[in-house]
Amino acid sequence: MSIAPWRSHLASALKKNRNQPHSRYFQLATVRSDGTAANRTVVFRGFLEDTDKLKIITDARSEKITEINNQSWGEICWYFTNTREQFRIVGKITIIDANHHESELQKARESTWQELSDNARIQFVWAHPGKPRANPEAFSPPQPDANKPLDNFCLLLFEPVKVDHLRLRGEPQNRTFYMRDEAGVWDVSEVNP
Amino acid sequence: MSIAPWRSHLASALKKNRNQPHSRYFQLATVRSDGTAANRTVVFRGFLEDTDKLKIITDARSEKITEINNQSWGEICWYFTNTREQFRIVGKITIIDANHHESELQKARESTWQELSDNARIQFVWAHPGKPRANPEAFSPPQPDANKPLDNFCLLLFEPVKVDHLRLRGEPQNRTFYMRDEAGVWDVSEVNP
Repeated sequence: MSIAPWRSHLASALKKNRNQPHSRYFQLATVRSDGTAANRTVVFRGFLEDTDKLKIITDARSEKITEINNQSWGEICWYFTNTREQFRIVGKITIIDANHHESELQKARESTWQELSDNARIQFVWAHPGKPRANPEAFSPPQPDANKPLDNFCLLLFEPVKVDHLRLRGEPQNRTFYMRDEAGVWDVSEVNP
Repeated sequence: MSIAPWRSHLASALKKNRNQPHSRYFQLATVRSDGTAANRTVVFRGFLEDTDKLKIITDARSEKITEINNQSWGEICWYFTNTREQFRIVGKITIIDANHHESELQKARESTWQELSDNARIQFVWAHPGKPRANPEAFSPPQPDANKPLDNFCLLLFEPVKVDHLRLRGEPQNRTFYMRDEAGVWDVSEVNP
């Protein structure tokens, strides 16, 4: 598979904004079972090797999982504060949980777990997210095994089909659409901001 | 109406992050007519006087309008980079367009237009957003009247019913839910991050 044409622009944004840790955070919108929108900040964990699929991690106890099981299409909004540019990315999300059958993807789930910091890993043994606040002891469990992912650790793979790249710095601003067809070929067009 | 209990926390975040112009941007998620999520960065234009309704502006030609007409509930995700805190705000969106019948809200639409910069106002006379890129002349029209809003200028009022405030800096992190009941009373609860 060849790399999508928007990838070089995203790589450039990540490079030019790398002095800001928040440049690796983006907002992921999904749809709740009642048909309303949900939106939260998540951390970009890189691309799945040799693909254009973005890696995100989440807890199986998170509401995201229910939402994605119900509607697997989502939209990422990624705003880079230094360079003042935005990527809106429409894509389909696949959940790689402890029971996922593909061994290649289980390997990816495992390596993503191994690459996490201790601080990120320990959150998967904390008390149930969103439930009434637990005692302090519930937040100081023993550190989990750094090699073997906990059962509630999920890898999400976000596969883009449309990218809307807006650069606010132009006069006027510049905006490019990238659209992937059924054959996996990307069409590129300049549009009005 | 009394001011909601999350307002002081939001005001404090705005104050502590005010050296960053992007602290007044947030991501607004809506739902497309095909039931998938949409997400984009918009600018916070303050609260509608004496209410907890957030003001956002948009062009009547924008896809947001179709989406909100179809599903008026949305979610704001507002991440403050200095203080490392996030507000997720669920609410109902009302579109105040040129034909809206309430004169009080037309006044709010008018004053929001008047408070815009020339740069923000001129974008409403630019070529149709998202259409194939127009000639440069389409982006240098005469400056519109600063007093009277153009017909395609819309004010959006976002009325919160639930706020999820996450502060990443705690050890462990702190998270508070605010929920408004039918009578307009806010319930506050501490939950697990």
